[in-house]
Formats: sequence, C-alpha cells, structure tokens
Amino acid sequence: MNELEFIARLRALAVNPAARGLVDDAAVLKLGDETLVLTQDSMVEGVHYLPDQDMADVAWKLAACNLSDLAAKGAQPLGVLYSHMLGSGDARFLNGLREVLEAYDVPLLGGDTVSANGPRSFSLTAIGRATYSPVPSRGDAKPGDALYLTGPVGAAMMGFEALRDGTTSDSSAYRRPVPLLAEGRALAPLVSAIMDVSDGLLLDASRMADASNVTISLDRSAVPIAAPESRRDDALRWGDDYQLLFTGPADIKWPIAVHRIGQIEARKGSALLIDGAAPVPDDALGYRHSE
Amino acid sequence: MNELEFIARLRALAVNPAARGLVDDAAVLKLGDETLVLTQDSMVEGVHYLPDQDMADVAWKLAACNLSDLAAKGAQPLGVLYSHMLGSGDARFLNGLREVLEAYDVPLLGGDTVSANGPRSFSLTAIGRATYSPVPSRGDAKPGDALYLTGPVGAAMMGFEALRDGTTSDSSAYRRPVPLLAEGRALAPLVSAIMDVSDGLLLDASRMADASNVTISLDRSAVPIAAPESRRDDALRWGDDYQLLFTGPADIKWPIAVHRIGQIEARKGSALLIDGAAPVPDDALGYRHSE
Repeated sequence: MNELEFIARLRALAVNPAARGLVDDAAVLKLGDETLVLTQDSMVEGVHYLPDQDMADVAWKLAACNLSDLAAKGAQPLGVLYSHMLGSGDARFLNGLREVLEAYDVPLLGGDTVSANGPRSFSLTAIGRATYSPVPSRGDAKPGDALYLTGPVGAAMMGFEALRDGTTSDSSAYRRPVPLLAEGRALAPLVSAIMDVSDGLLLDASRMADASNVTISLDRSAVPIAAPESRRDDALRWGDDYQLLFTGPADIKWPIAVHRIGQIEARKGSALLIDGAAPVPDDALGYRHSE
Repeated sequence: MNELEFIARLRALAVNPAARGLVDDAAVLKLGDETLVLTQDSMVEGVHYLPDQDMADVAWKLAACNLSDLAAKGAQPLGVLYSHMLGSGDARFLNGLREVLEAYDVPLLGGDTVSANGPRSFSLTAIGRATYSPVPSRGDAKPGDALYLTGPVGAAMMGFEALRDGTTSDSSAYRRPVPLLAEGRALAPLVSAIMDVSDGLLLDASRMADASNVTISLDRSAVPIAAPESRRDDALRWGDDYQLLFTGPADIKWPIAVHRIGQIEARKGSALLIDGAAPVPDDALGYRHSE
C-alpha cells in the first residue's frame, strides 16, 4: 500500500468530525468551554534529518514543527508528550529539547522511551488551546481572497546546503526553525484559511487549494525569498521554512508584517496557477522530503 | 547513556508539576473546568512484538496499552493521535486499528505517516478527560492500605507462548489485551494508588512502592493467575496483562470484583516483600520486555 492510499484509508477510520483535518492539519477537539488543538509528528533518521546531524538540532526541529502546526491554528501551546528511541547523541538531544521547550515556554508533560536497532525515529505530540474560535483550517479559502505569506521561503534550503557542504554559511534556518506562534494567534481571527509551509510553498499552496476547492493564483515574483534570485524556483519548492500561508481580505490592515503573493479564484482546472499558468508536471511542486 | 539515566534527565526537563508522573504514569493537565489525561506509548518491531505477528494485533495492542494508561487514571478516552511507519501489513494494521477504536468507541483525531527502512516503530497518543479529581496516581499508597488486583496475571504469557510455539491454545490475551476503562472509572474515587500491570506484577508493584515510599507486602498464593500453578512465579513476572493494581481500605465494599493480594507497610528496606521476604536478586522482578 502506498502512502496516499494508507492516508485515505486512515482518514476513513476517522468518523469523528473533529478529525476532518487528519494527517494534514492539527486536530481540533471541543472540551467544555475550551477547544484543544493536537498534533503528532515524527522524524526518522536518514529521512527527516542527516545521519551525522547534531541531535540537539533534531530535537529542536521535532518540537518546532509540531509547535508550528499549533501556530497555524492560532493555538497557545499547553505542553508536549515525547517518545524517544535511545541511541547515540542522547545527551545532545536532551539539550536541544530543553532549549526549544524553554524558548517557547512549553512544558514537557510526559512520554516514553524505547530501545531498538536500526534507523531511529522520534515522535512528539503537542497540545494547545485555541485562542480563537472557530479554529481556522486550510480548507476555507474563498474566491476573491488575497493570498499572503508571513516571510521568505528558501532560508531552510540555504541552511541545509551549508550544513551538507560544510561551509561557514549560517545553517540555523534549517537546524532551528521558528514556529510562528504569536503570528498565528494574531492572524487566526482574521484569516479565511491558514497553514504552515513545511513541505514547500508550491506543494502546500496546492494542498490548500484542493482542501478549499479553489484555484490559487500565485505571483511568482511577489514571493519573498531568502536565497539568491537564481534559486527562486528551488526556494518555492523547498520546505522546512515554517512560514504561515494564509488567505483573507485584500483590503485589510494586518496586525503583523505580511507579504501578498497571489489571489484566490473559483476552481477551474489546476489547483495552482503560477503567473497564470498551471505548473507541469504536477509532481514537481515540492520535494516531499518532510512528511 | 542508558535508559534509566535518560529518563532521569528527561524528567529533569519537566519543570511543570503536571509532569510528575513523566514516563511512568499518564500526564495530567488542568484546562478550565476539565482535567485532561494524556499518554504516549510506542511499539517497536522485534522489541514489543514478534516480527511475523499479525499487524492487526499490533495495532490493537498499541491502542489498548495507551487506553489502559487512561484506565489507570479513571479517565474517559476522548481520542487518539497516531504516527504510522509505512511497510508490510498496513492493510491488516488499519483493520486492527479500526477494531480497537470501535471496540472502545474512541475517535481517531489525527496523526502522521512516515516512510523508513529498518525495524518499524509506531507511536500513539491517547487523550482522555478525568472523571474523578484528584486524579489518582501510583504514588499515594499508604501504610495500612490493602493491595488489590482486578484479575489474573499470566494470561498474556500463556498467549505469547501459544503464538510463539504455534499451538492451538488461545493467544488472544497476548494479542488483544483489554484496557479496563470502566473498572478504572469505578475505582478512581476509592483508591489511594493505582496503576496498570503492564511490565509484570512484581516489577510494577515495586515501582508503586518506590513512588509511594512504602513497602508492599505481597501474598504470593493470593495472586490470581491464568496459568498452570507450576508457572506461578513466571506469571507474577511476565507483563502485558493490563490488570489494574491498586491500594485502598481493607474493609470497603468495592464496586467491581477485586482480589486482595497483600498489604502496604511503612517503608523499611525492600520495596517489595513476597510472603514476608525480600526478593533476590532485585533485577529478576520482571522481564522488562515491554517498556
């Protein structure tokens, strides 16, 4: 069974309406007067990080990518649960975990350790409380909305290449991504749709378009990039930047700095138009290196 | 770094009082008028299940062991999050996951899929709401209390051996453990301490004694076993039975059938006494095959 088929069948198990965003978005769960937001993401050695990477950075990124899912829901983190597979670099891992939890003031609530041979994997669950209801999703972009991005893409790509090639360039954007928690809370009451750009701008924009049944028309040159202009196409496809991609009115004064990068149209044909043209082939939108 | 050292250092990160039970007990988190109970457990191929086991049973057990952690807190399950590593038997896995979630009426809220080579691991998070406050823990057994068990141990051992040896004996206790959710809710208001027996009665009783700073005096022959009498010592050490071990008044009428198997004394020397004698050596209390 391939991954898309597995996800489709997993979704079919999720009869609860709260699981609408299963696998894609963080889960939303009403409890009394509160609304919980929950997300669980894993990282696997050799798939989501380089085998010789500093384990402190792996821990940081694992927590940050989960917190970014909360950010995209406008949620305030309440804590994390963490499953650790024991192995080399465990002391560094703990350092990185402490650093990221302190940086975002998130308590460690519980977890589990296991021993195993072979490539290691780590799984973290983040729990938050929604600060705005209804909790926004990626599925409510409307024709006529404008498309926005909180900041540049491509920084993680440049950081990855610096790390891979052992240059002196700054690799922190790849190693220590920043979940935009305050930005997500500020945006949640105002957006029609929102998600984080973890798998690449083009791929994630096409997912937002599919989830909302609209066509997203992207102005290629309007996208801010943190890479040389010659790498623009790569920057639009690389992931791991954790900027927030969102839609909303074209004439609003946003509470934070945002970049307008396109507009939403009624769905006709392609999920995505780049400067008015459908991308070909469809599977070159992103690297899918980060699940 | 060995596992105990890692856990100690992980606990040191958990500055939040809610994380008191880190790694051992499920986490408890106050939110408005509600109290959340959260647990995350993983299963690793070749460590927590036989490589050739039916993946439907693996899925069942992964969910059941997490639900059992909620049971030991008297919590009502609200849902689960699940991280899946793709591989062979995925269709069977999904069947088993559907069966266990339907059996206990628990919605799948969200999750994640990853691809990897090597031994597979699966991680599940269960979320529940406490039905009784304060939420009981393993750390509040008091001298003078009696020690109880909800049912026999050894059934999982017999099931494992039947499965391993390919006999026609029933292996369901090992393959499809039953989380005692209703029992946990009935007991929560009445117990002083409670936990599930997932790693073996003797080992888990010694953990309860350490967490409570008491000595647990166990009547060996009073323990109900689901195994031949000749296997009594093995049954007391084998895990995976998911019975609830708890302490409370000696003279109470319990709302469910229970077995009195010992008493709690002020701590003096050994955490555990078996028929009045300290077990030797200490590390033979359980197999630790299930983390």
